[in-house]
Formats: sequence, structure tokens, C-alpha cells
Amino acid sequence: MTLQTTDQLQAFKQLVRKIKSYHEAIGLLHWDMRTGAPRKGTEIRSETVGVLTAEAFRLEVSNEMEQLLEYLTQPDVLKSLSDDDRRQVENSKKDYDLNQSVPAEKIQEYSVLSAKAQTYWEEAKHNSDFPGFEPYLSQIVALKKEFIDYWGVKDTRYDTLLDMYEPDMTVQKLDKVFDRVKTRLVPLLEKIQASPNKPDNSFMKQLFSEDQQEKFGLFVLEQMGYDFDAGRLDESVHPFATGLNPGDVRITTHYLQDDVTSAIFSSLHEGGHALYEQNIDPKLAGTLLAQGTSMGIHESQSRLWENMIGRSRPFWERYYGDLQKHFPEQLKDVEVEQFYRAVNRVENSLIRIEADELTYNLHIIIRYEIEKMLFNEGLDVKKLPEVWNAKYQEYLGITPPNDGLGVLQDVHWSGGDFGYFASYSLGNMYAAQILVTLRKEMPEFDTYIAKGNLLPIKEWLSDKIYRYGKSRTPSELILAVTGEDLNPDYLCDYLENKYNEIYNLSL
Amino acid sequence: MTLQTTDQLQAFKQLVRKIKSYHEAIGLLHWDMRTGAPRKGTEIRSETVGVLTAEAFRLEVSNEMEQLLEYLTQPDVLKSLSDDDRRQVENSKKDYDLNQSVPAEKIQEYSVLSAKAQTYWEEAKHNSDFPGFEPYLSQIVALKKEFIDYWGVKDTRYDTLLDMYEPDMTVQKLDKVFDRVKTRLVPLLEKIQASPNKPDNSFMKQLFSEDQQEKFGLFVLEQMGYDFDAGRLDESVHPFATGLNPGDVRITTHYLQDDVTSAIFSSLHEGGHALYEQNIDPKLAGTLLAQGTSMGIHESQSRLWENMIGRSRPFWERYYGDLQKHFPEQLKDVEVEQFYRAVNRVENSLIRIEADELTYNLHIIIRYEIEKMLFNEGLDVKKLPEVWNAKYQEYLGITPPNDGLGVLQDVHWSGGDFGYFASYSLGNMYAAQILVTLRKEMPEFDTYIAKGNLLPIKEWLSDKIYRYGKSRTPSELILAVTGEDLNPDYLCDYLENKYNEIYNLSL
Repeated sequence: MTLQTTDQLQAFKQLVRKIKSYHEAIGLLHWDMRTGAPRKGTEIRSETVGVLTAEAFRLEVSNEMEQLLEYLTQPDVLKSLSDDDRRQVENSKKDYDLNQSVPAEKIQEYSVLSAKAQTYWEEAKHNSDFPGFEPYLSQIVALKKEFIDYWGVKDTRYDTLLDMYEPDMTVQKLDKVFDRVKTRLVPLLEKIQASPNKPDNSFMKQLFSEDQQEKFGLFVLEQMGYDFDAGRLDESVHPFATGLNPGDVRITTHYLQDDVTSAIFSSLHEGGHALYEQNIDPKLAGTLLAQGTSMGIHESQSRLWENMIGRSRPFWERYYGDLQKHFPEQLKDVEVEQFYRAVNRVENSLIRIEADELTYNLHIIIRYEIEKMLFNEGLDVKKLPEVWNAKYQEYLGITPPNDGLGVLQDVHWSGGDFGYFASYSLGNMYAAQILVTLRKEMPEFDTYIAKGNLLPIKEWLSDKIYRYGKSRTPSELILAVTGEDLNPDYLCDYLENKYNEIYNLSL
Repeated sequence: MTLQTTDQLQAFKQLVRKIKSYHEAIGLLHWDMRTGAPRKGTEIRSETVGVLTAEAFRLEVSNEMEQLLEYLTQPDVLKSLSDDDRRQVENSKKDYDLNQSVPAEKIQEYSVLSAKAQTYWEEAKHNSDFPGFEPYLSQIVALKKEFIDYWGVKDTRYDTLLDMYEPDMTVQKLDKVFDRVKTRLVPLLEKIQASPNKPDNSFMKQLFSEDQQEKFGLFVLEQMGYDFDAGRLDESVHPFATGLNPGDVRITTHYLQDDVTSAIFSSLHEGGHALYEQNIDPKLAGTLLAQGTSMGIHESQSRLWENMIGRSRPFWERYYGDLQKHFPEQLKDVEVEQFYRAVNRVENSLIRIEADELTYNLHIIIRYEIEKMLFNEGLDVKKLPEVWNAKYQEYLGITPPNDGLGVLQDVHWSGGDFGYFASYSLGNMYAAQILVTLRKEMPEFDTYIAKGNLLPIKEWLSDKIYRYGKSRTPSELILAVTGEDLNPDYLCDYLENKYNEIYNLSL
């Protein structure tokens, strides 16, 4: 590496660290607003977030950044960098190109519009009033289409959006993957619905004190290996995980007094996200690679802990006794087997975020197909409720009684987050695929869980996935870990096996 | 106002708001570090604070600020502004001149040195090792003297420092004020020491659950009129109040299991600070005037609530029953009169932050006299322990057994905060003076307290003090409220009356 390259690389890294400082502050401002900032301070607080966000963006598209990237992306220079540094420069260049391609006034227009749209969406959802929301959504879709032109159309317009959440993911790949999932899971769901062996979850509707729920949740997080010296657990309306810095990865949960499982699984879920960020190689700290490599891979880690481990029989064989101790009255007549079956009950429901492991994927496929229609096939926004309801009838056999429980249920579109939903299902698929390798390389997997020895699992995941952060792309990572590309059959196998057994199906 | 002035004023206000956004974020980062940020994140967190602090400073001394102030401080322009706007511009100009007068490399040198010094101070305090700390302190004093040259020497060098915490406060004024206080309080203290009627506080050393302490603290804060929709109560090692924005003024307390009074009085104290910031006129929000006008006035509000109200007999006549309900076992044999006397026990102690209402002022006078010697009379830093111990013997009749309990007890000097201590005693004096007016204008004052009707008191203070924020200087404010300048006799009267009665002195 030449002396000049060393200097330029140094300057680049310093600028990146500065930008990351802004992101840490913005992350804390958000975390605080969601966990307990006083109501009357939110208006000015939002301004403060706006000022810092604008400043971080200004640095990202600054002349300084432009010149550094111009120098560092010269082929000779790029070749002389270490793998991690090269990856960092390439990622930055991609972000820079995206960021500066859209005229500033368009970004301004978009941010005003989406702020408004989110407010109107809440109202519209509450009143099941799609026509009232439609004009805003139409404008967002139109503006997003303009953005795609600025960003550059990949194979299709929708490909451009997919790539932003899951690098290198394409419509071509996803069509195949989701078709396979549909082909295998829709019939499975029909068999489950026809089965007379439905898990009994009638005991769920009781009062469970928040205090005891919190104690059990903290215990489970400790068991997973979540590091409380590098994080903390709080409560918020919607659970989330946020990595402020590698030594400060926070999670939240939400306690429902009449459903003890909600907070448990959300803690396992957010705990999974947090383990990923807590265990990124310290040498990447302060770089752009100190984060999850994609939404899909991030989600695979939350779902692996929530579902593949947390909803497994060995897990409850080990931990159900502890849960009973926290709720001796409520659970005294419930056997572990009944509990295990109850947390795995499949239900054709209307709401994505309440869906079980199986139907969840169908909720996602519906959204994927509709987004593709919006961006690639000219679907009119006005037609959304009609298309939505038809697809729910087709895949899940139910029709929403109103748009609040249908097309208006998710916040994503009001914020312009098209292309995001697929990540959730990709997470399930990656997780199932990784699980197969994990079981192969760790034959004691089930025994470890049944003994409450979860740390070897965390170590394996750290070694194979977490530590790399964003230094491997999702496709590189899944290939390196499992020896093959994304393959949806693993998820289908996993779900078939699980539900065959629980519902006693004869496939 | 000309069109150009309108534009320039608008631009100035926007720049101020931007700077305030940085301060809100920095304030939250600090609050978070002190109330529960995970340990492993603090190193990167400190960097983040550094980045944002540097950026805020950069804006404060930016060319943009310089040009705006140059325009706005032209006599014609200044005259055309509203009172509040003029005050804002003048305050900014003062800060700007101070900030840009010191060369950047000196500021850098100072910030490195004081960061180091604070670390070494902790160690030195722990080990009672003044000689180990002395070289750092000497450097800080030397550098501070250089700074005074850059800032401009007022009547004396020490005047320059005083003015930074209490605008327009001078050595000449303070010498008179503190002489008067000494003349009256030292003999009073001697009488108290000689009195056989010492309050019995033997019941204090018991176990008081933190949970119950928190409940009582929240109750007291509600009674004061602290707005929990514009603030929150947390725990930290050292209690503090922080106004992130006018709708978000947070306080912390610290629970001692073996002293129920510590958290109560710190909640009243920080609650007093917070009431000030929560009740600044909303029209000042986002301006530089939306803050307390000086350290001394701020402290007067915390001490008025903590001492003049919280340590008064009517207060405990009303609230002692509630406290007993929270601690029925511990307080069942303690009468309200015994409790009232116990929280007003005077003790010649070594440690400022543990001192009672009377001796507190002597602790401050000692520091004031020493700081004056350091900056105006060439006192060698090496001589500090000797001078310190002699003054403690002279005013308080005790000599510290070691420097950890003596000259090393406070953090202030290690951070270069010379001139700050006086504010604490000024707070007591302002508070006593305001109290006399308050009683005159509100003859029901004691009755209100005895009935737990504290809101009229909060309203009176809002009307006379809080709402003005920094739009009146401390001297303007005290004159407007009480009709006279700072007068230390009110504090002396207050203390004499109080302790005559409690100690049954015959003066």
C-alpha cells in the first residue's frame, strides 16, 4: 500500500467513524423515545433527530467522502487494500452512489410526504379507511418509482428495491423460492386445518404478572448468552433490538398480562438479533462492517432463536419447569407437552405479526406478490384492498372483514419500505438451512438444548455467522456456512416434520 | 426592523436551534451513561460524545455565527430588536467572544489535561495522595490563568472566573457578602455547638427499602407540581437534573438503604431545579434564553424546595404521616417533632456535600477564599492542603485527618471549575431573600405547606422567576422579585430563627 493510500484510507475511516457517532446518537434518541421519553418533549426531540440525521446524511454525500471514494475505488488502490477494507470501501461507494443520485429536493419531498403518510396511516388503520389513505400511498409509490429511476433499474424496478434490503436478491430468485414454498406449504396448511389433533391453548388466557414475566425473560436471555454488560432490556410498545455500538446492543419487549408467551418469544427474537450484533469481531468495531450483513440474515438469527430453538420440544423440556415456578397457579395443571403444542398451534389468521411459523410465510408471499405487481406490473394503488383480500382468500382461506385488519395492518408501506417484507421469510429460510448444518456439525444440538446448555450454540453461530458482520454478503455467508445457496426446501422440510408430529398428520 | 435584519435574525435563530439540537443529543448521551448505559459501550460512547461536542463547538465559533453576530450587534440593529432577541444576541456574542478568544490548540491541550486530571483525581482522592495529584492541578491552574488572559481580566483574575457562572458577580461584592455571613454564622454555630438540646437522629440508621423510598419520592415530586409528562425520575450514583428540552426535564436520585432522608431531600433539590426549567415561558423554547439565568439562581430554586420548604416544620406536619405509612415499622416510635429536628441537625463535618444548611455556607466560604488566593494572590498549589486544613480548623473547628477527606474531596477543581463553588452559597442567599418576599406576598405560605397545597407556591415562583429563563440577569431578577440587591442578612436571619427555635438558644 502506498503512503498516499494509507493516508486516504485513514481519512476515510475517520469520516466513517464520525458518521457512526451520529448514528449512535440518533439511535439513542430513537431508543429513548420508544422506551420512556416524556410525552411533552417529543416535538422538539423530533427536530433534534432531524438535525442530526440531516448532518449524518450531509457527511455521507460530502465532497470529502466523494474525493476519498474516488481515490480509494481506483482499481490499483482497491486491489492493494485488505479484504475488509476493500469491502468497506465498496459498500460505502454503493451507498454514496445511491444517496447522491437523488436530487436533494426530491429527498426533502419524500421525507415530508412519508412523515405525513405515517400519521395518516395510523388514522386510516384505526378507521379502516383505505380511501382516506390511498392518495398518500399513491404519491409514495409514484415517488418511489422516480427514485428507482435515479438509483438505476436492475433487472426489474422491484429488483432495485429488493437489493436495498437483501444485496443481490432478485425477483428471478425469489419467484422460484416462493413458488416452491407455496407449493409445499399450502397443502401442508390444508392438512393441518383438516386435522382433528389441534393443540389446546385454552390455558393461555389468564393473568400473568408483568413482574414475573420480566424475571423469566431476563433468565432466558442470560441462558442464551446475551451479555447484559453490553446491553439492557427495556419495555416498549413494539419490541425491537438496536445496536448503538458493539458494546451497547439493547433490546426491548412488551408484556401482555393475558398472554405469557408473547414476551418470551419476543425476548428470544430480539435476543437473537442482539447476539448477532454483540458478537461481531471486535476488529470490525467502528467500521461499516460492524453490523448485520442483511435484513434477511439478521432475521434468520432472531427466528432461529425464537422458533427453531425457542419453540422446540427440548427447549421446553428444559425450561418449562422454570416457567411453572414463575407462575405456579396459572400453570399448575398444564403439562409440558400441552404447553409445547400450544405454542406451536397453527392458525389461519389475518394479522402477520400474530402468525405462526408456517402461515407467516404465506403472509409474506402475499405482500411480495402485491409489491411486485405495484412496481413491475402497474397495479393501481386503488386496487390494493381488492387484490389483498383475494390473495388472503386464496392462500389462507380467509377474507379480512375490513381494511384495518387487511391491507392497512402494516406500517411499512406508509414509510415507503417496499421490498422489506421478503426479508422476514428469507430469515425463516436461511435459519432452517443453517439449522441443518448446525445439527450436522453439532450432533448434541438437541441434548444441549434439553440440558439448558445453550452457549455452545451461541459459540457456533458466532464462529460461523456473527463475527463476520457485514464482511461477507448474505449469499457468500450462506454458501460458506451451509455449502449451498439459499434453498427453500429446508424450511419446508422443517415445517413438515414439526407439524406432522404435532398434528399427527399422515403425509 | 429592516428586511435584512429580519432575515439575519431568522438565520441566527436557526443556527441557535441547530446548536441546541446538538446539546439535547449530548445531554441524552450523558444522562444515559449515568442512568444505565451498559458498561462495555462506554468507550465508544465517549468518542461519540466527543464528536458531537466538537461539532457543536465548531458551530458556535463558525464563520456563519461570526458574520451573523457582527451584523446583529451593530448598535442600530441591536436597538431595533425585541428585548428577548437583543438579550439572546448579546449572550451569544459574549459566548462567541469567549470561545474564539482561546487558540484551538490551547483548548485541545486543556481538554486532554482535564480528562487526565479527573482520572488521577479519583485515584488521588481514594489514596489521600495530594502530592500525586498536585502536578496535574498545578498545570490546570496555570492553563486556566492563561485562559483568563485570553478571555480578558476583569477587576481581578478571579472576577473573570466568577462572572462565567454568575454574570456580574465580583470579588468586591462577594467579599462583603461572605464577610457578613461569616460574622453572623460563625458565632451562631458556636452557640449551637454549645447547646445541650441536640436533635436525636439515632433512628436514622435503619433499613429502608428502596422500593418504598421510590414511591414516597414520586409522591413528593407530584405534590411539588413536577410534571411527569415533561420529565422522568431515574436513579444514578450522584443525583442530578438535566433539561434536554423544555418538555423533557429529567431528574435522578440515589437511594441509600440506611438513610431514608438522602433520597427525599435530593428529590426535592433536583425537583426544584426541574420546576425552574419546566416552567420557562414556552415562547422562549428553542432560544438561548430557555435555561436558568445563572448557577446561583438555579441553585436558589433547588435549595428553596429542599431546605426552606422541605426542611420546614409545616412540611413535615403535612407529610410525615405519609412517610410513616411507607415505613410503618421503622418510624412507629418516631414523632413528627423528633423527625423534624433530626433532619435539621447541625454538625461540624468535613464533607461539603453532607453538610447541613448552616455549615454548608462555611464550606463554601473556605473554597471561595482559597480560589481567590490561587488566582489573585499567587498561592502555590503545593500549599493547598495546609491552607485548607487551617481554614477548616478556623471556621469549623475541625481538621481533616487526611487529604481525601480534605482538599481532595470535590471533583470541581480537577475539571477546572474554579469560581463555581460560590454559586451554591449564593443559591442559599437568594433563596432566603426570595422567601421573605414570598411570605409577604403570600401570607398563607405556611398554611399552604401544612395543608399540602404546594401548587400556589410553584405558581408564584413560576410567575416571578421560572418563566423568565435567561431573559433577566440574576441581579435584574433578584431586584425585580425582592425590590433589593443581594442581601446576605436574609439568610442569616432565616438560619438564626430556625436554629434558635430548634436548639432553644438564647440569643
